[in-house]
Amino acid sequence: MIPFLGRVDEREQAMWIEMLSNNMPDETIVAFADLTDAQKQNCEIAIVANPNPQDLLSLPNLKWIHSLWAGIERIMNELVSPPFSIVRLSDPELSQVMSEAVLAWTLYLHRDMPTYARQQREKSWIEQPMVKAQDRRIGVLGLGALGRVSAQRLAQNGFSVAGWSRNPKQIDGINCFYGEDGLASLLSQSDILVCLLPLTPDTTGLLNEQSLSHLPEGASIINFARDLYY
Amino acid sequence: MIPFLGRVDEREQAMWIEMLSNNMPDETIVAFADLTDAQKQNCEIAIVANPNPQDLLSLPNLKWIHSLWAGIERIMNELVSPPFSIVRLSDPELSQVMSEAVLAWTLYLHRDMPTYARQQREKSWIEQPMVKAQDRRIGVLGLGALGRVSAQRLAQNGFSVAGWSRNPKQIDGINCFYGEDGLASLLSQSDILVCLLPLTPDTTGLLNEQSLSHLPEGASIINFARDLYY
Repeated sequence: MIPFLGRVDEREQAMWIEMLSNNMPDETIVAFADLTDAQKQNCEIAIVANPNPQDLLSLPNLKWIHSLWAGIERIMNELVSPPFSIVRLSDPELSQVMSEAVLAWTLYLHRDMPTYARQQREKSWIEQPMVKAQDRRIGVLGLGALGRVSAQRLAQNGFSVAGWSRNPKQIDGINCFYGEDGLASLLSQSDILVCLLPLTPDTTGLLNEQSLSHLPEGASIINFARDLYY
Repeated sequence: MIPFLGRVDEREQAMWIEMLSNNMPDETIVAFADLTDAQKQNCEIAIVANPNPQDLLSLPNLKWIHSLWAGIERIMNELVSPPFSIVRLSDPELSQVMSEAVLAWTLYLHRDMPTYARQQREKSWIEQPMVKAQDRRIGVLGLGALGRVSAQRLAQNGFSVAGWSRNPKQIDGINCFYGEDGLASLLSQSDILVCLLPLTPDTTGLLNEQSLSHLPEGASIINFARDLYY
């Protein structure tokens, strides 16, 4: 028996339980609220969507929980040293969709689309200076599953791309920086900064007035993180 | 001696003559207004930027004119059966820049960015249905230098791409249609229609109420042409 624990409304919970049950016909998936005390003793796995931490701790034999979403910052913040493992979604399709969004918003800024939209409303037509993609420096914060694919997609579309991660990484065509010194270097050469880091104790406070002061004048930030790291 | 003929202001004309002279030190490039009658007899080449057709016809020995721009519809419309050849700009960089613009605006519509911008102004947050790139059908009208590279760039970024030209063409990864029947087929499966045709007597009237009625409900048009063909 696998309980579903989530702070979602009843309709959405029923939808998830139905879809999960249809796709895992050998498992019995039930709402946490429907578990008896005896059943709680036996649960080894739980499927979660922003669960109430107290509910999780009432399952003494839990070995691992599987989060429906890629974001883990809420679980990480609410559960300090949980006695079970946390598994989260990592889906190649998600990387594709995210890299498409990164590309869409990078092009939006690169091609000055907000300026032209404003000018259109003001009925003015002033041609903006054209910058070639190879002269537009994009900095990607975070080189995990999402950041790596996004950085590569930007490079494939002609941008000059650098990336930053806490630990050293190597990615073809991407100028990779790491660590505290590397962060200042990356920021100092990012005309557009794309944030794809998870929010964890390690990234909290990463972006602040001091670190952002390294950005070149007129730089833009595209924040795809669940929250900003400050 | 090569005259420069253009309906541009004096400052812009001086800039062009200076830049062209610097890059072609063996040639003498002068403003049309500065030509003597005798010099007019000797001109075989002219550099033009939306020239006055009467001025061109006052150069009896003109063999060819070179337009500064890619667009030729104004010259084509204003000069019927000219006694000289027309050369226009065809620059691989222009294809790259155009394909980037095509991609930027396609992503803008594909990712529902206008809807979210409106919602942001209205302080509302309603998640729009997500469509995968491979399920978004893009139709590219015109498969010349610009259309071909644009169609390929869209396909590289995951879209389902079809193209149309007057005569049959073959492009890897692009479903190519041609002719009048092909136009109706292309339009009927274009969620987003990208117009990259030149405006010529052959394309005039191509898009009209009847042909556009083949578009699926809710389709969008991105018009990069100098004018619409109706």
